[in-house]
Amino acid sequence: MMNKLSIAILFILMIPALGSSQDNSDKNQGFFPAQTNQPGKQYPMVNAKGKVRARITAPDANYVKLDIGGVKYDMVKDQDGMWSGESDPQDEGFHYYQLNIDGASVNDPGSKSYYGAGRWGSGIEIPAHDQDIYAMKKVPHGKITQKFYFSEITKTWRDCFIYTPPNYHKDMDTHYPVLYLQHGSFEDQTGWSSQGKANLILDNLMASGKAVSFIVVMENGYASRPASETDGNQNRSPSAFEDVMLDEVIPMIDAEYRTLKDRKHRAIAGLSMGANQTMRIFMNNLDKFTSYGGFSGTSNYPSSDAIDPVTFLDGAFKDGAAVDKKTDVFFLSLGTKEPNPFPGSVGAFKKMLEKQGIPYTFYESPGTAHEWQTWRRSLHEFAQLLFK
Amino acid sequence: MMNKLSIAILFILMIPALGSSQDNSDKNQGFFPAQTNQPGKQYPMVNAKGKVRARITAPDANYVKLDIGGVKYDMVKDQDGMWSGESDPQDEGFHYYQLNIDGASVNDPGSKSYYGAGRWGSGIEIPAHDQDIYAMKKVPHGKITQKFYFSEITKTWRDCFIYTPPNYHKDMDTHYPVLYLQHGSFEDQTGWSSQGKANLILDNLMASGKAVSFIVVMENGYASRPASETDGNQNRSPSAFEDVMLDEVIPMIDAEYRTLKDRKHRAIAGLSMGANQTMRIFMNNLDKFTSYGGFSGTSNYPSSDAIDPVTFLDGAFKDGAAVDKKTDVFFLSLGTKEPNPFPGSVGAFKKMLEKQGIPYTFYESPGTAHEWQTWRRSLHEFAQLLFK
Repeated sequence: MMNKLSIAILFILMIPALGSSQDNSDKNQGFFPAQTNQPGKQYPMVNAKGKVRARITAPDANYVKLDIGGVKYDMVKDQDGMWSGESDPQDEGFHYYQLNIDGASVNDPGSKSYYGAGRWGSGIEIPAHDQDIYAMKKVPHGKITQKFYFSEITKTWRDCFIYTPPNYHKDMDTHYPVLYLQHGSFEDQTGWSSQGKANLILDNLMASGKAVSFIVVMENGYASRPASETDGNQNRSPSAFEDVMLDEVIPMIDAEYRTLKDRKHRAIAGLSMGANQTMRIFMNNLDKFTSYGGFSGTSNYPSSDAIDPVTFLDGAFKDGAAVDKKTDVFFLSLGTKEPNPFPGSVGAFKKMLEKQGIPYTFYESPGTAHEWQTWRRSLHEFAQLLFK
Repeated sequence: MMNKLSIAILFILMIPALGSSQDNSDKNQGFFPAQTNQPGKQYPMVNAKGKVRARITAPDANYVKLDIGGVKYDMVKDQDGMWSGESDPQDEGFHYYQLNIDGASVNDPGSKSYYGAGRWGSGIEIPAHDQDIYAMKKVPHGKITQKFYFSEITKTWRDCFIYTPPNYHKDMDTHYPVLYLQHGSFEDQTGWSSQGKANLILDNLMASGKAVSFIVVMENGYASRPASETDGNQNRSPSAFEDVMLDEVIPMIDAEYRTLKDRKHRAIAGLSMGANQTMRIFMNNLDKFTSYGGFSGTSNYPSSDAIDPVTFLDGAFKDGAAVDKKTDVFFLSLGTKEPNPFPGSVGAFKKMLEKQGIPYTFYESPGTAHEWQTWRRSLHEFAQLLFK
């Protein structure tokens, strides 16, 4: 009796997690719940054209707007106090967005949270023609591990995420190459394994044999020394990211994971700000890395001016033949819809490489802007070139 | 020149992540930013009395309320459209909360998100007299790993979180005991390592020698078979959690981690709904587990009636001596401020154990209700008893 009652209670408690299957019935006019929704949440919805339909209960609000892609769309209230609204078609892939209720910018209660634009905010996944590259498939999956450590450089607790490939736990004698992979500005170490889907992209590539097995380390690109160590300067202290990466993160990863520790088996890449940061680290440490990926960014950002290799990055590209000899993969990418200054800035950088006779691979993501779909695709291309 | 410009840009981009040190100056009247805030966010704040002070810009709102602990506190608008409000003192530890803007319940943009009450919502950490047990300290830290797998029982993708102890990576010949640790209703597999701080509690206990080193596996307690397999029943399918745990999760963990695979080195525990679920699994599988922890819950929930051991859980407790012989640790806990039916229900269960002559350990968390501080403390007590 009691047993049955308890089961009934368990049963009721389980309802919220049962989730909702995608509802493609006529009443939703082709709209279905976004992949980025919280468990069991029907809204926000998307359709095949990339339109976003949002909904929120706010009976006493004066106005509610759907704020996505730089546009605020008015939402309309029904008799029950439910506001609904729809956006214009959005580009394929992942976008940050928010709702605005009477002037307050807030998360959509239907969406999961993603760290971008300097806050944990709502995100929405627009189905893409090539979403197969990051689909969750019945292939062996790697794991994502969060590692906490105290940085003696920043004097703060930090954490990084480590992707270990599918068979990492199987053979204790196998050692792996490592890719250090960085996020962009106003994002953090969670981005690549959350909105970036780096683990799924790599699981799929490794399963199909298109990429070799390697470890990926995703760090927080923001690092600064304590104010007390910056000559009494009361302002923001300069970035210590390069030192954290070289003196703390890489030795820690090499100590705690079965890595291949030579430069031939170490690559570094990043997107936007991360492309800028990692290019500096790469060029300053060609004894430690052999390959570089710069997704939607280069270290001449934001300038589109012609680059003088004698002065740029202290002359790191001055001897083109020497750079080429030291480099296995030099990869750059952009989305075709990226705004200024990215096309001009990356373009100027490419011209400099060409002038210096440094070969590089350039990938262009069709129909995407300075957003995650560009970077997912960039990783998908870049990963296939690494450690071969 | 270009190099310097780029550095300047990086520098500007880094400002949001520099965070804010706790501001205890007079202007904040003893209030300081909560530990649960997003990076760099000053609000919400808490004070030593456990009061919460919230703030949000909503210039055109008719009203904004701070909704915490079952009470909605009116907030007041200033001339700049900023709403501020303050709660009564809250209990020590972690609480879910939300803001209400003109009838819309939304996350506080200052808070990180936590999965509880069936959604990713705001949470706030109230300083506790014993917060040292889960403080981030300069001790060796374990790692938290997310493992994705396809369940052939539920026919869905699932994921679990695995805590590996600080030295797990060091000696490839050492094998470890495992604790399977479950969340409560309307929560999920993220709870214990996020709001539960299980990793920090264990790091600290292991560093001080008060707990032995073991692995912790945190699963999602919601699992159901596909509707197609439930005899054409169109209703919710019954829980498949026990089968997922026994037939999929435990074999997977034993295959992928260096575990000790006998019952002597396997324990299971949970909070609230998880206590109920794991007690059933424990009692049905005494050949697989040797210790049990039930935090704020027992399988007679929600009844406070006297338990008949002949019928309860199909007579699992009927032979008290046999249960005692098979059990190493049988641990129960409650917070002193828990509401009905928990004290009555757990109380009736304890009486049954006593009548059956089954020894157990009971821990009472002072001044806390059916919330995470009770469960953090319960884990802290329980972990010290395990595998000794």
